[in-house]
Amino acid sequence: MEGPFVIVGGDAAGMSAASKAKRDDPDRDVVVFEKGEWVSYAACGLPYYVKGDVETLDDLVQVTPEAFVEERGIDLRTNHEVTAVDRAERTVTVTGPDGEFEQAYGDLLLATGAQAVVPPFDGIDLDGVFTLHNMNEAAEIRRYLGLDTPTANLPEMGYGAAAAEYAEAEGPESVAVIGGGYVGIEMAEAFAAHGLDVHLFEMLPHTLQPFGTEAAGVVEDHLREQGVELHLDTAVDGMVGDNHVEAIAAGDLTIPVDLALVGVGVAPNTELAEAAGIELGPTGAIATDEYGRTNDEQVFAAGDNAEMTHVVTGGPDHVPLALTANRAGRAIGATVAGEPTPVGEIAGTAAVKAFDLEVARTGIVDEEAAREAGFDPVSVTITARSRAHYYPGDEEIQVTLLGDRDSGRVLGASMVGREGVAKRIDTVATALYARMTAHQLSYLDLAYAPPFSPVWDPVLTAGKVLDGKLSS
Amino acid sequence: MEGPFVIVGGDAAGMSAASKAKRDDPDRDVVVFEKGEWVSYAACGLPYYVKGDVETLDDLVQVTPEAFVEERGIDLRTNHEVTAVDRAERTVTVTGPDGEFEQAYGDLLLATGAQAVVPPFDGIDLDGVFTLHNMNEAAEIRRYLGLDTPTANLPEMGYGAAAAEYAEAEGPESVAVIGGGYVGIEMAEAFAAHGLDVHLFEMLPHTLQPFGTEAAGVVEDHLREQGVELHLDTAVDGMVGDNHVEAIAAGDLTIPVDLALVGVGVAPNTELAEAAGIELGPTGAIATDEYGRTNDEQVFAAGDNAEMTHVVTGGPDHVPLALTANRAGRAIGATVAGEPTPVGEIAGTAAVKAFDLEVARTGIVDEEAAREAGFDPVSVTITARSRAHYYPGDEEIQVTLLGDRDSGRVLGASMVGREGVAKRIDTVATALYARMTAHQLSYLDLAYAPPFSPVWDPVLTAGKVLDGKLSS
Repeated sequence: MEGPFVIVGGDAAGMSAASKAKRDDPDRDVVVFEKGEWVSYAACGLPYYVKGDVETLDDLVQVTPEAFVEERGIDLRTNHEVTAVDRAERTVTVTGPDGEFEQAYGDLLLATGAQAVVPPFDGIDLDGVFTLHNMNEAAEIRRYLGLDTPTANLPEMGYGAAAAEYAEAEGPESVAVIGGGYVGIEMAEAFAAHGLDVHLFEMLPHTLQPFGTEAAGVVEDHLREQGVELHLDTAVDGMVGDNHVEAIAAGDLTIPVDLALVGVGVAPNTELAEAAGIELGPTGAIATDEYGRTNDEQVFAAGDNAEMTHVVTGGPDHVPLALTANRAGRAIGATVAGEPTPVGEIAGTAAVKAFDLEVARTGIVDEEAAREAGFDPVSVTITARSRAHYYPGDEEIQVTLLGDRDSGRVLGASMVGREGVAKRIDTVATALYARMTAHQLSYLDLAYAPPFSPVWDPVLTAGKVLDGKLSS
Repeated sequence: MEGPFVIVGGDAAGMSAASKAKRDDPDRDVVVFEKGEWVSYAACGLPYYVKGDVETLDDLVQVTPEAFVEERGIDLRTNHEVTAVDRAERTVTVTGPDGEFEQAYGDLLLATGAQAVVPPFDGIDLDGVFTLHNMNEAAEIRRYLGLDTPTANLPEMGYGAAAAEYAEAEGPESVAVIGGGYVGIEMAEAFAAHGLDVHLFEMLPHTLQPFGTEAAGVVEDHLREQGVELHLDTAVDGMVGDNHVEAIAAGDLTIPVDLALVGVGVAPNTELAEAAGIELGPTGAIATDEYGRTNDEQVFAAGDNAEMTHVVTGGPDHVPLALTANRAGRAIGATVAGEPTPVGEIAGTAAVKAFDLEVARTGIVDEEAAREAGFDPVSVTITARSRAHYYPGDEEIQVTLLGDRDSGRVLGASMVGREGVAKRIDTVATALYARMTAHQLSYLDLAYAPPFSPVWDPVLTAGKVLDGKLSS
């Protein structure tokens, strides 16, 4: 297509697309507009920055803006916000430090990501109430905790001075984490590492909803062992306080806290697309075809704002995760450069560290979701060992495996344990792509050595048990 | 078939078959003859017993002989050796503590395992020269090292007294490990843990031949770092000494050592089968069909003495490993009990710990072997990280991935690194069963979280690079 390849959003999907397109078709102009100052950063690392495992925010930056411009030849403009798309004229309207202008495009990629959902809680604007929205907010949390933020190019932020004053004067001793998903669990660990009393609020009966109740049960026992006060099945009404948060109100409960972190999920940023007449799919994210195209052939969408095809259901799904964004961006970059490349399918594979536990999932874990997708789900949960039973450091692993009674196919799995979980889920994820039955899964030749696995890997044992249940 | 199910050999394959057959068909007699006193023990754990990670030999026993008899109803006879099979009469000749007798069978399973190969070295019979043949020999090595052998039912052994005397008087300070395979590497680690100077002799130019030269190179650097003196490309002529070994002779070299461990591989125990007219396959192990049957429909073979079908080549292969034995035994137990069950295919998946390294392989790693199997191999070797680059404890992983130019199929892989290797190979193993292309491999949705993986898992990165090379 004539005209430059224009990309809205400079994170995983956007910069992957830009880099691939420029590499494959160096003569074409590639222009990226990023409304913030950070590009290509690892948002998944923010909890570990707050915790202190990652020293500086700069460590989370994979490629600097300078490198994109100078080494990769990409016309990257930070602090530039795209406010409108004119599909008829093939232009976008951009607001930058020097005012507003129009930019023509040949192909357009909307890589606008997602944003933290902020429920309309009472007192949401009090000092000391945070989301983990971006790099700056992570730094702000550390300041509020009275911790240093040794980062070269960290900008001055809003309420930094007041926060620092508060931190110095009193210093938070307790925190409410609202939401028991990835971010909530990871931030509970981060806060606990700084000695804070942690209250974790979850509206649903269990934390880590996508991982299923079996895994969640093990995680919750572990969180309690680690001193986290769990408030499950508990809807938060709001934050109480004068200037800064002093308590959380939830029904009859009022829990005094000095800090609140809201991590109740993310929502795709679709406003720009919707205003331009780009269609959304059933999940509320932007509908795309196998090449990441929207209903406009010249407009692509990728990353946390876009739907992908689920490998088990064959239908659209919205699972905003980093690999999906990177890969779809890269594929679109190749397509735009002249080599049509499908963005691939997703299995919703995910892992999370919860204090000393590894938790992982892939495919469909929830029986109700499986039924909705037309399957007749059968589920087994087993416990096995991470190493040979006689080898030191051996730990228990719990595996839940879901299969379809009609076809015998494996539909998904969750796992939890102190070691050997996060990458073991990949075996099941791979089996999902191959549409393997439980029987086939149980007959895989997986690695065995006493320090790393029992003779029958936990995945094989789960496959064997599920196969037995499916054929009974 | 009328008559009892008779099994020759009471280790992984034999006891798995016995247990499964008795569970599925409790009315049928199941008789197991084991010539030694140990059954169902984890031979793979022996190096860790010598090292001291595993406290007692009893810890390596998965199920005791008493439990097989009393809980599972299996007629298990230890110290009974089967010396002949009469296929026409369907009997076996057995020599036990009370003399020789005949035992009739309906179905027969030859689960005779393999034995350590002992080359005709000069001085092989000197005191202080060991293989790691069985439980008793592992205990004997510890005695020779002057270490205790706290094990309830360890029998008195041959040269125990002399060894103990020697150990007390002088105590070995240096050891020759002859053979750089699994056992050699694991035993090098075990001896080094006791402070011995370790000389490792390998006839071939590299250690760990099945893992390929790329992985071996990393392992060898690491072995040297750990103080192991490597003698590669070095054929040992023999052991020198009067009563006990005092040196190793290899060409012009004479290396003084106080102990020698011969671990140059294993050979299938096929004498009994051959004498009975059971056919061997091209590898020298017993030829079997997909149900583990030999050329005699009533005679099965499984475990370290039997061939299996390789999932990549579709041809017979002999890879004596524990999972294969367990699974084939179990399948044959089910078949004999009336439910025909294929023994499955193997991928030659294996892992080994080499001091602080994990090393793993699956499928075909060697280009020459790939060509022999009719493929046009293309290989890539990449280095990637085990975790997000900013997450503490991140280590380098080297992945070698082999593909076929014509079909794009992945043929095999090896990996090496300090963490996250042994179970990562399972992803590739699973892909082999699905006959995935490098492109499909690179589009899997694998787990990502900073503590466990980079966004692009090393397997994905290797798949991407191989895909690029295959399509160029």
